[in-house]
Amino acid sequence: MKAKVYVTLKPSVLDPQGKAIHHSVELLGYKDISDVRQGKYFEIALDDAASEADAAAAVEKIAKDVLTNPIIEDYRVEITS
Amino acid sequence: MKAKVYVTLKPSVLDPQGKAIHHSVELLGYKDISDVRQGKYFEIALDDAASEADAAAAVEKIAKDVLTNPIIEDYRVEITS
Repeated sequence: MKAKVYVTLKPSVLDPQGKAIHHSVELLGYKDISDVRQGKYFEIALDDAASEADAAAAVEKIAKDVLTNPIIEDYRVEITS
Repeated sequence: MKAKVYVTLKPSVLDPQGKAIHHSVELLGYKDISDVRQGKYFEIALDDAASEADAAAAVEKIAKDVLTNPIIEDYRVEITS
């Protein structure tokens, strides 16, 4: 079983790294881009022995406690088999 | 229109940051996790004036040229309206 966790800055939090990428991309001539925001992405491989419900609960807790700073970040979890 | 770009290390490339997260997560008592790999995630907002095909081509090129180091990383692009 595999889980994917997406961590993004909350919309109210400034993203200087994304702004820098946006600026570079504009300099390279791409005019249609209105915003770039950077986040983090984690692929977690789980033992197949675990039930899907247990795995989802564990990954949800890991995403919340370890991978995300809840003050400034949101997260989203996807379980795929 | 929005595009999401996922950048991951190629499977053959070592991921010490992922290994560190895996180790921490094990110490916290999660025994069902067999691997963690970290990647990057970008949300790109595009002007709605651009056609979907143009947008897809631009984002594909940006992902390839700016967001990814092709020696060690793979990328995946998703366009959502």
